[in-house]
Amino acid sequence: MKLQKLFPALLLTGMLPLAGAAHASQPPAGAIVNIAELDVDPVQVEAFKAAVKEEMDDSVRIEPGVHAIYAVAHKNDPAKFMFFEIYASRQAQDEHRKTPHFRKFLDITKDMVRGRRIVETDAVHLVSKP
Amino acid sequence: MKLQKLFPALLLTGMLPLAGAAHASQPPAGAIVNIAELDVDPVQVEAFKAAVKEEMDDSVRIEPGVHAIYAVAHKNDPAKFMFFEIYASRQAQDEHRKTPHFRKFLDITKDMVRGRRIVETDAVHLVSKP
Repeated sequence: MKLQKLFPALLLTGMLPLAGAAHASQPPAGAIVNIAELDVDPVQVEAFKAAVKEEMDDSVRIEPGVHAIYAVAHKNDPAKFMFFEIYASRQAQDEHRKTPHFRKFLDITKDMVRGRRIVETDAVHLVSKP
Repeated sequence: MKLQKLFPALLLTGMLPLAGAAHASQPPAGAIVNIAELDVDPVQVEAFKAAVKEEMDDSVRIEPGVHAIYAVAHKNDPAKFMFFEIYASRQAQDEHRKTPHFRKFLDITKDMVRGRRIVETDAVHLVSKP
Protein backbone atom coordinates (compact mmCIF):
# COMPACT_ATOMS: atom_id res chain seq x y z
CA MET A 1 0.00 0.00 0.00
CA LYS A 2 1.31 3.42 -0.81
CA LEU A 3 2.19 5.70 2.07
CA GLN A 4 -0.25 8.33 0.95
CA LYS A 5 -3.12 5.91 1.29
CA LEU A 6 -2.07 5.10 4.83
CA PHE A 7 -2.12 8.69 6.05
CA PRO A 8 -5.74 8.88 7.17
CA ALA A 9 -5.56 5.64 9.12
CA LEU A 10 -2.23 6.54 10.69
CA LEU A 11 -3.51 9.92 11.74
CA LEU A 12 -6.59 8.40 13.31
CA THR A 13 -4.58 5.92 15.31
CA GLY A 14 -1.95 8.47 16.28
CA MET A 15 0.82 6.27 14.86
CA LEU A 16 2.22 8.74 12.37
CA PRO A 17 5.68 9.83 13.54
CA LEU A 18 5.45 13.59 13.31
CA ALA A 19 8.61 14.43 15.24
CA GLY A 20 10.07 17.55 13.72
CA ALA A 21 6.87 18.85 12.22
CA ALA A 22 6.24 22.33 13.51
CA HIS A 23 3.63 22.59 16.25
CA ALA A 24 3.17 18.81 16.29
CA SER A 25 2.96 18.77 20.08
CA GLN A 26 0.56 21.65 20.55
CA PRO A 27 -2.69 20.85 22.28
CA PRO A 28 -5.37 20.59 19.62
CA ALA A 29 -7.25 23.70 18.56
CA GLY A 30 -10.44 23.95 20.54
CA ALA A 31 -8.94 22.01 23.43
CA ILE A 32 -10.84 21.96 26.72
CA VAL A 33 -8.93 22.56 29.94
CA ASN A 34 -10.32 21.29 33.20
CA ILE A 35 -8.82 22.06 36.60
CA ALA A 36 -9.68 19.93 39.60
CA GLU A 37 -8.57 20.54 43.18
CA LEU A 38 -8.76 17.58 45.54
CA ASP A 39 -8.23 17.42 49.29
CA VAL A 40 -7.00 13.97 50.21
CA ASP A 41 -6.90 12.27 53.59
CA PRO A 42 -3.30 12.95 54.69
CA VAL A 43 -2.69 9.39 55.86
CA GLN A 44 -3.80 8.02 52.48
CA VAL A 45 -1.71 10.29 50.24
CA GLU A 46 0.63 7.58 48.99
CA ALA A 47 -2.21 5.19 48.14
CA PHE A 48 -4.01 8.03 46.38
CA LYS A 49 -0.90 8.86 44.33
CA ALA A 50 -0.56 5.24 43.19
CA ALA A 51 -4.21 5.11 42.09
CA VAL A 52 -4.09 8.45 40.30
CA LYS A 53 -0.87 7.67 38.43
CA GLU A 54 -2.39 4.46 37.08
CA GLU A 55 -5.56 6.27 36.04
CA MET A 56 -3.63 9.09 34.35
CA ASP A 57 -1.39 6.71 32.42
CA ASP A 58 -4.40 4.67 31.27
CA SER A 59 -6.34 7.77 30.21
CA VAL A 60 -3.60 9.33 28.08
CA ARG A 61 -2.61 5.97 26.56
CA ILE A 62 -6.10 4.63 25.80
CA GLU A 63 -8.22 7.70 25.06
CA PRO A 64 -7.47 9.55 21.81
CA GLY A 65 -9.13 12.70 23.16
CA VAL A 66 -7.07 12.98 26.35
CA HIS A 67 -4.10 15.13 25.37
CA ALA A 68 -2.44 15.55 28.76
CA ILE A 69 -3.03 15.28 32.50
CA TYR A 70 -0.72 16.95 34.98
CA ALA A 71 -0.99 16.30 38.70
CA VAL A 72 0.77 18.40 41.33
CA ALA A 73 0.52 18.79 45.09
CA HIS A 74 0.82 22.01 47.03
CA LYS A 75 4.33 22.29 48.43
CA ASN A 76 3.02 23.51 51.80
CA ASP A 77 0.20 20.93 51.91
CA PRO A 78 1.07 17.60 50.25
CA ALA A 79 -2.52 16.35 50.71
CA LYS A 80 -3.88 19.13 48.50
CA PHE A 81 -3.73 18.05 44.85
CA MET A 82 -4.36 19.99 41.69
CA PHE A 83 -5.06 18.42 38.30
CA PHE A 84 -4.66 20.23 35.01
CA GLU A 85 -6.32 18.23 32.24
CA ILE A 86 -6.31 18.95 28.51
CA TYR A 87 -8.99 17.28 26.38
CA ALA A 88 -9.38 17.51 22.61
CA SER A 89 -13.03 18.47 22.97
CA ARG A 90 -15.97 18.63 25.37
CA GLN A 91 -17.08 15.26 24.02
CA ALA A 92 -13.68 13.74 24.84
CA GLN A 93 -14.00 15.08 28.38
CA ASP A 94 -17.50 13.63 28.76
CA GLU A 95 -16.37 10.26 27.41
CA HIS A 96 -13.39 10.18 29.78
CA ARG A 97 -15.73 10.22 32.75
CA LYS A 98 -17.49 7.09 31.52
CA THR A 99 -14.37 4.97 30.97
CA PRO A 100 -13.73 1.87 33.10
CA HIS A 101 -10.34 3.18 34.28
CA PHE A 102 -11.84 6.46 35.49
CA ARG A 103 -14.75 4.68 37.18
CA LYS A 104 -12.26 2.33 38.85
CA PHE A 105 -10.23 5.32 40.06
CA LEU A 106 -13.33 6.97 41.55
CA ASP A 107 -14.22 3.75 43.30
CA ILE A 108 -10.74 3.12 44.71
CA THR A 109 -10.33 6.69 45.95
CA LYS A 110 -13.85 7.44 47.19
CA ASP A 111 -12.79 7.09 50.84
CA MET A 112 -9.53 8.97 50.29
CA VAL A 113 -10.94 12.21 48.88
CA ARG A 114 -12.38 14.66 51.41
CA GLY A 115 -13.08 17.59 49.12
CA ARG A 116 -13.29 18.21 45.40
CA ARG A 117 -13.56 21.49 43.48
CA ILE A 118 -13.77 21.78 39.72
CA VAL A 119 -12.72 25.04 38.07
CA GLU A 120 -14.31 25.46 34.67
CA THR A 121 -12.04 27.40 32.36
CA ASP A 122 -11.70 28.87 28.93
CA ALA A 123 -8.36 28.15 27.31
CA VAL A 124 -6.51 31.39 26.56
CA HIS A 125 -3.28 30.05 25.09
CA LEU A 126 -1.71 26.59 25.31
CA VAL A 127 1.86 26.20 24.12
CA SER A 128 4.41 23.45 24.60
CA LYS A 129 7.71 22.33 23.10
CA PRO A 130 7.41 20.60 19.74
CA MET B 1 -4.22 19.57 -5.80
CA LYS B 2 -4.72 16.18 -4.24
CA LEU B 3 -4.91 15.96 -0.47
CA GLN B 4 -1.93 13.62 -0.32
CA LYS B 5 0.33 16.18 -1.95
CA LEU B 6 -0.71 18.79 0.57
CA PHE B 7 0.33 16.81 3.63
CA PRO B 8 3.98 17.90 3.88
CA ALA B 9 3.12 21.57 3.50
CA LEU B 10 0.26 21.34 5.97
CA LEU B 11 2.45 19.59 8.51
CA LEU B 12 5.16 22.21 8.22
CA THR B 13 2.75 25.07 8.64
CA GLY B 14 0.98 23.38 11.51
CA MET B 15 -2.36 23.69 9.76
CA LEU B 16 -3.19 20.01 9.73
CA PRO B 17 -5.92 19.34 12.28
CA LEU B 18 -4.33 16.57 14.32
CA ALA B 19 -6.76 16.62 17.23
CA GLY B 20 -5.37 14.30 19.83
CA ALA B 21 -3.08 12.42 17.50
CA ALA B 22 -0.09 14.74 17.63
CA HIS B 23 3.02 13.60 19.44
CA ALA B 24 3.64 15.86 22.37
CA SER B 25 6.96 15.57 24.12
CA GLN B 26 6.83 14.35 27.72
CA PRO B 27 7.76 16.83 30.41
CA PRO B 28 11.37 16.12 31.44
CA ALA B 29 12.04 14.08 34.56
CA GLY B 30 12.53 16.40 37.51
CA ALA B 31 10.35 19.05 35.92
CA ILE B 32 9.24 22.00 38.03
CA VAL B 33 5.60 23.06 37.89
CA ASN B 34 4.64 26.59 38.80
CA ILE B 35 1.07 27.80 39.09
CA ALA B 36 0.29 31.51 38.97
CA GLU B 37 -3.12 33.09 39.48
CA LEU B 38 -3.53 36.63 38.19
CA ASP B 39 -6.42 39.04 38.63
CA VAL B 40 -6.52 41.39 35.67
CA ASP B 41 -8.29 44.72 35.28
CA PRO B 42 -11.51 43.64 33.49
CA VAL B 43 -11.36 46.47 30.94
CA GLN B 44 -7.80 45.50 29.97
CA VAL B 45 -8.35 41.76 29.50
CA GLU B 46 -7.86 41.76 25.74
CA ALA B 47 -4.64 43.80 25.92
CA PHE B 48 -3.39 41.48 28.65
CA LYS B 49 -4.16 38.41 26.53
CA ALA B 50 -2.19 39.82 23.60
CA ALA B 51 0.83 40.55 25.79
CA VAL B 52 0.77 37.19 27.51
CA LYS B 53 0.43 35.21 24.27
CA GLU B 54 3.51 36.91 22.85
CA GLU B 55 5.46 36.28 26.04
CA MET B 56 4.41 32.61 26.17
CA ASP B 57 5.32 31.98 22.53
CA ASP B 58 8.71 33.65 23.01
CA SER B 59 9.44 31.69 26.19
CA VAL B 60 8.69 28.23 24.80
CA ARG B 61 10.45 28.99 21.50
CA ILE B 62 13.58 30.66 22.86
CA GLU B 63 14.22 29.03 26.22
CA PRO B 64 15.36 25.39 26.17
CA GLY B 65 14.21 24.92 29.78
CA VAL B 66 10.63 26.10 29.30
CA HIS B 67 8.71 22.95 28.41
CA ALA B 68 5.16 24.32 28.35
CA ILE B 69 3.00 27.22 29.47
CA TYR B 70 -0.76 26.92 29.58
CA ALA B 71 -2.97 29.93 30.22
CA VAL B 72 -6.67 29.69 31.04
CA ALA B 73 -9.31 32.05 32.38
CA HIS B 74 -12.07 31.17 34.81
CA LYS B 75 -15.28 30.61 32.89
CA ASN B 76 -17.29 32.58 35.44
CA ASP B 77 -14.70 35.38 35.72
CA PRO B 78 -12.79 36.06 32.46
CA ALA B 79 -10.48 38.52 34.25
CA LYS B 80 -9.16 35.78 36.54
CA PHE B 81 -6.29 33.97 34.82
CA MET B 82 -4.42 30.85 35.79
CA PHE B 83 -1.02 29.85 34.40
CA PHE B 84 0.34 26.34 34.54
CA GLU B 85 4.05 26.40 33.71
CA ILE B 86 6.38 23.42 33.28
CA TYR B 87 10.13 24.07 33.53
CA ALA B 88 12.92 21.56 33.03
CA SER B 89 14.51 22.55 36.33
CA ARG B 90 14.54 25.16 39.08
CA GLN B 91 17.42 26.85 37.28
CA ALA B 92 15.39 27.09 34.08
CA GLN B 93 12.58 28.72 36.05
CA ASP B 94 14.98 31.25 37.61
CA GLU B 95 16.52 32.06 34.23
CA HIS B 96 13.10 32.56 32.67
CA ARG B 97 12.41 35.42 35.05
CA LYS B 98 15.52 37.25 33.86
CA THR B 99 14.82 37.05 30.14
CA PRO B 100 14.11 40.20 28.09
CA HIS B 101 10.73 38.87 26.89
CA PHE B 102 9.56 38.16 30.43
CA ARG B 103 10.81 41.54 31.68
CA LYS B 104 9.02 43.21 28.78
CA PHE B 105 5.81 41.35 29.66
CA LEU B 106 6.03 42.45 33.31
CA ASP B 107 6.54 46.03 32.18
CA ILE B 108 3.68 46.04 29.65
CA THR B 109 1.23 44.44 32.07
CA LYS B 110 2.20 46.13 35.34
CA ASP B 111 -0.87 48.40 35.25
CA MET B 112 -3.16 45.59 34.10
CA VAL B 113 -2.54 43.12 36.93
CA ARG B 114 -4.36 43.79 40.20
CA GLY B 115 -3.43 40.68 42.10
CA ARG B 116 -0.95 37.85 41.76
CA ARG B 117 -0.68 34.59 43.69
CA ILE B 118 1.99 31.95 43.12
CA VAL B 119 1.27 28.37 44.17
CA GLU B 120 4.45 26.41 44.74
CA THR B 121 3.96 22.77 43.89
CA ASP B 122 5.61 19.40 43.81
CA ALA B 123 4.98 17.52 40.60
CA VAL B 124 3.16 14.25 41.29
CA HIS B 125 2.74 12.89 37.77
CA LEU B 126 2.96 14.66 34.41
CA VAL B 127 1.78 12.75 31.37
CA SER B 128 0.96 13.83 27.85
CA LYS B 129 0.49 12.09 24.52
CA PRO B 130 3.77 10.43 23.44
